[in-house]
Amino acid sequence: MHTILTGDRPTGPLHLGHYVGSLRNRVRLQSQHRQFVMIADLQALTDTDPEKVRSNVLEVAYDYVAVGLDPGQSTLFIQSQVPELAELTVHFLNLVTLARLERNPTVKEEIRQRGFERDVPAGFLTYPVSQAADIAAFKATLVPVGADQQPMIEQTNEIVRRFNALTGTATLVECAALIPEQGRLPGIDGSAKMGKSLGNALALSASADEIRAAVKRMYTDRKHLRVQDPGQVEGNVVFAYLDAFDPDARGVADLKAYYERGGLADTVVKNRLEAVLQAQLAPIRERREQIARDPEHVRRLLEDGCVRARAVAADTLREVRHALGIEYFVDAHPQHGRRRAGR
Amino acid sequence: MHTILTGDRPTGPLHLGHYVGSLRNRVRLQSQHRQFVMIADLQALTDTDPEKVRSNVLEVAYDYVAVGLDPGQSTLFIQSQVPELAELTVHFLNLVTLARLERNPTVKEEIRQRGFERDVPAGFLTYPVSQAADIAAFKATLVPVGADQQPMIEQTNEIVRRFNALTGTATLVECAALIPEQGRLPGIDGSAKMGKSLGNALALSASADEIRAAVKRMYTDRKHLRVQDPGQVEGNVVFAYLDAFDPDARGVADLKAYYERGGLADTVVKNRLEAVLQAQLAPIRERREQIARDPEHVRRLLEDGCVRARAVAADTLREVRHALGIEYFVDAHPQHGRRRAGR
Repeated sequence: MHTILTGDRPTGPLHLGHYVGSLRNRVRLQSQHRQFVMIADLQALTDTDPEKVRSNVLEVAYDYVAVGLDPGQSTLFIQSQVPELAELTVHFLNLVTLARLERNPTVKEEIRQRGFERDVPAGFLTYPVSQAADIAAFKATLVPVGADQQPMIEQTNEIVRRFNALTGTATLVECAALIPEQGRLPGIDGSAKMGKSLGNALALSASADEIRAAVKRMYTDRKHLRVQDPGQVEGNVVFAYLDAFDPDARGVADLKAYYERGGLADTVVKNRLEAVLQAQLAPIRERREQIARDPEHVRRLLEDGCVRARAVAADTLREVRHALGIEYFVDAHPQHGRRRAGR
Repeated sequence: MHTILTGDRPTGPLHLGHYVGSLRNRVRLQSQHRQFVMIADLQALTDTDPEKVRSNVLEVAYDYVAVGLDPGQSTLFIQSQVPELAELTVHFLNLVTLARLERNPTVKEEIRQRGFERDVPAGFLTYPVSQAADIAAFKATLVPVGADQQPMIEQTNEIVRRFNALTGTATLVECAALIPEQGRLPGIDGSAKMGKSLGNALALSASADEIRAAVKRMYTDRKHLRVQDPGQVEGNVVFAYLDAFDPDARGVADLKAYYERGGLADTVVKNRLEAVLQAQLAPIRERREQIARDPEHVRRLLEDGCVRARAVAADTLREVRHALGIEYFVDAHPQHGRRRAGR
């Protein structure tokens, strides 16, 4: 059994890209492993307006429960409510050089994309350290990430090894990346990445009309102008979505072959995709609407998750302080003593 | 009445440089203001071996009590035991750019001195942010610093202003530097700075023999070879120490005039200095020896200070979380609820 840490930045409601890339896998993983799912509000604050972050925390939680993340199986929590993560971040900042952070390819690319250059906020440059702290605090051994996030995992393990070497302990554990088999879902416009800010996303909470409109907008094979001509499946957004969503893989394979031979109209493929999406998203949407009617319930559920997550992180931090030799008073942190007594 | 935050890095026992530059003033300030005195173990960990840091925390506490810091008047605490400071540091990291940190003249100079270049640990480069968090968490309005630390205060106020502007609140307060009238005490070898690692320091806990030997080693005026010749007072270490320690300022002025006229032997001046130092350091040393016999007592005293300091910092952090809109559950932090109930 692994311990998994995963999560999302609450910068908007989650969309089909999140569903295919991670949410779906989490639902599968939660019954086999010990899974922590973090709403990364602090990380979102590194480059997002606080009001936007705040308002999206509950939205993301609705999405989680709607897709089937079970608070009894997965610990759903909010990053800022586990201050031990900030504490560990500060310890970790001593274990990584500025040069190493600047070399991180993921960060480098994101700094370039956002046009920060030297005006990058320190919190943005150091977010791999914060990520390492999140992972290490839960002693996660598996971290689901996209292939492009592999450098983050390497950086985490470097920090973990440095901490253990520096303190001569085996306090922290290394983790492995869990890269999803299913490739990234393209945006509905065919661009490689789906993003709310890119205007090419379909939200998990999309209405039936929105789903219909999105499928309508999707590119197929741009050169497939006449039904009788052979069409291309490679790079065809509609087929990419069928691959990701249609449970009938053989049916999809047959359809692809037919499309490549020629004679299959785009509308037929689109109709199939629309039916598949409507069928899969309707129960999610309905569940989400139902949940969203009782925000207090979701808030309580998150609060309970935060308490559980905090207990785990606090245990690690106690070990970290001990390893660093900065645990001067056994009961300096009142909540620890209390929690111990309660066990 | 001001709130003062001050403190020391526990990298060795404190010496006369600390006494003249800060400890003495703190004893004076503690009766007029609300003073927090922090043993900055986390900051020391940015560039010092954990074992060394740990072993010096109690040493510094002994020094504090020995010079007359009264735990009933000053809150003496250890940085790492107030994790709210780390939490605020992480929030502040978003409010300062890498370029701004690299421009900080104090940090620039220290990076140069230590030969870090780009291999500077991130925690070292960001320590002005951590310092800003320490100051802001206690809402300190006065921060005693050397003249060379003025840029740190400016950086703190910049961050405070950015936080307040970003959140549209007046949560945090700006501070002013309190620069001591008495200039920096030179090392016993005459170099501008006294430092344990420079081998030119006289510890507060120095024995009578060590004091005698240190005074003997001190340079006077190197060109004052014959008693009858005029001597120089400017840059004369022995006179610098008399200025700093001799309570009889008029006596020192007369002595300086005599020395400049010629006819006053270095040994006479040195004997006077030695008598002054022996008289002032003996009670400190004796008190220190007495205190050090009961480390448990000092530990309890620090623990009490940490609890008090933490209560203040936790109040600020609650306001900070509220301002950032990341206070989702009123009682997510059990210790807060408890403390409120206890008031």
